[in-house]
Amino acid sequence: MNPICRLFNIKYPIIQAGMVWCSGWRLASAVSNAGGLGIIGAGSMYPEVLKAHIQKCKKATDKPFGVNIPLLYPNIQEIIDIVIEEEVKIVFSSAGNPATWTKILKNEGIIVVHVIANTKFALKAEEAGVDAIVAEGFEAGGHNGREETTTLCLIPMIKAAVQIPVIAAGGIGSGKAMLAAFALGAEAVQVGSAFAVAEESSAHPAFKHKIIGATEGDTRLALKKLVPVRLLKNEFADAVANAEAEGAGRTELAELLGRARAKLGMFEGDMEKGELEIGQVSAMLKAIRPASVILEEIWQEFKAEMARIKQLQSELGL
Amino acid sequence: MNPICRLFNIKYPIIQAGMVWCSGWRLASAVSNAGGLGIIGAGSMYPEVLKAHIQKCKKATDKPFGVNIPLLYPNIQEIIDIVIEEEVKIVFSSAGNPATWTKILKNEGIIVVHVIANTKFALKAEEAGVDAIVAEGFEAGGHNGREETTTLCLIPMIKAAVQIPVIAAGGIGSGKAMLAAFALGAEAVQVGSAFAVAEESSAHPAFKHKIIGATEGDTRLALKKLVPVRLLKNEFADAVANAEAEGAGRTELAELLGRARAKLGMFEGDMEKGELEIGQVSAMLKAIRPASVILEEIWQEFKAEMARIKQLQSELGL
Repeated sequence: MNPICRLFNIKYPIIQAGMVWCSGWRLASAVSNAGGLGIIGAGSMYPEVLKAHIQKCKKATDKPFGVNIPLLYPNIQEIIDIVIEEEVKIVFSSAGNPATWTKILKNEGIIVVHVIANTKFALKAEEAGVDAIVAEGFEAGGHNGREETTTLCLIPMIKAAVQIPVIAAGGIGSGKAMLAAFALGAEAVQVGSAFAVAEESSAHPAFKHKIIGATEGDTRLALKKLVPVRLLKNEFADAVANAEAEGAGRTELAELLGRARAKLGMFEGDMEKGELEIGQVSAMLKAIRPASVILEEIWQEFKAEMARIKQLQSELGL
Repeated sequence: MNPICRLFNIKYPIIQAGMVWCSGWRLASAVSNAGGLGIIGAGSMYPEVLKAHIQKCKKATDKPFGVNIPLLYPNIQEIIDIVIEEEVKIVFSSAGNPATWTKILKNEGIIVVHVIANTKFALKAEEAGVDAIVAEGFEAGGHNGREETTTLCLIPMIKAAVQIPVIAAGGIGSGKAMLAAFALGAEAVQVGSAFAVAEESSAHPAFKHKIIGATEGDTRLALKKLVPVRLLKNEFADAVANAEAEGAGRTELAELLGRARAKLGMFEGDMEKGELEIGQVSAMLKAIRPASVILEEIWQEFKAEMARIKQLQSELGL
């Protein structure tokens, strides 16, 4: 049995990424009900909002689901308390040091996975005792690693460095990309952008439509002097790009970013002034559909491509 | 039979990238003799030098080999004339519009492949009548596309757009990455960095040693305001990074770059003031070995990984 399916007790080794303003209880429960692992993204939720989402998710599915917690969250202790009280079984942590919280969560019997973008943090996470790692490449949407290592280069490096299972993320929105991740040694995939446009995603409809209209080169890794983040091009992203080209420093960029700009764009639907986090794979997304259909399509294509690889063996005389 | 093996009449669908200051007749003939397709990189050669390399390559191998020609080369007509006179059978063109030269080369019975980094140019190349395309992702060394699309995202998009065979490039230096490229739909792979450190590569020994000492994050896409190029970090690359962070414009960057800086670094061995073009995969390269050993290792790992994918099928209950 696949180690990630066994770890989470799920049918398909497909994880829905915890995404700010996209992945509430509706998306998480839809993915879990369809046989993947749904994840509530706590990063954009006040503690009470997260609590309500967890409670609704438990009612909406009897399958395993998880919560993604950015460890730099200001109310982190409160968030951790809620996750424990609500008996969440799976936590994906990101954006911070896993050493502090992993033991506390593990002591409560919670499965812990940490998101990293380089070998150094993969080793730190393994040392902290996490059960698996998400290794996320440069092409991923949202916050991103400083090394800019792509998924194709990152996964084999991480696999060579750690013993625990590796979940590949970044650029994976199809069965082909999923098979490529497995060829690189990943035991599962985390899919973000493709689920951001699911019907059950809480992203604003205008954002979903902008994503499915995106083409090559429409995303860019921005704000590297603050925290690198992959954004969809719009008025705000262009302003950032221009400021960066002219040598804007941290202070100027932080002012340009301001506050609550991701909410303004992704949740409230301001397509020009909002911050729109999405991956390069957005150029391949063409429709808004139920999460179950998206998941099933990835899985069916993965199986079909596996069969094609078998045919390749004879074509290559192997 | 694999379409790229058939097109070039080679044993393995592995192409050695034409690289400035690395791939002269020694490397090209070594790769071709080992069953791949060796390519002489004309980009760093005066016409008379290229002519000598082609003649030596013909003596060193009776197997097919190619010449890579950047179409923006100042003496382009002279280069094309030499390739035709010397009866070169395969040309990889890059960095320019294939419409002008493809027909001329094809009329001479030469197989033409064009290197692209986005769908727009893939379609232009197909329309120009090329026999195949190299699709090169963001992680590749040397000159690179403005869209920053990674190999994982690029290959499926290009495959969906064109009918002709697609050779994947960027981030491929192992059998695992080769299988990932095939999973994405590629018919072959082009390997650059891994052959740049071959014994037969004409790169300066100091450059080869710097490459095999490189780790994650040691390359960076630089000079985006001129022509984007992935460079290994050193004094020069840091100076460029600093200038860019401070908003340096085209003129300032062009002055900083100066002339013949790639030769200074890659061929003459100035590891601090030279321009060192290499891919992200350099972080995985650990030894200087004969090209035949490098090629054989990629091929054996590719076969082993294919067998592993078969086992995965049963593990996943497929």
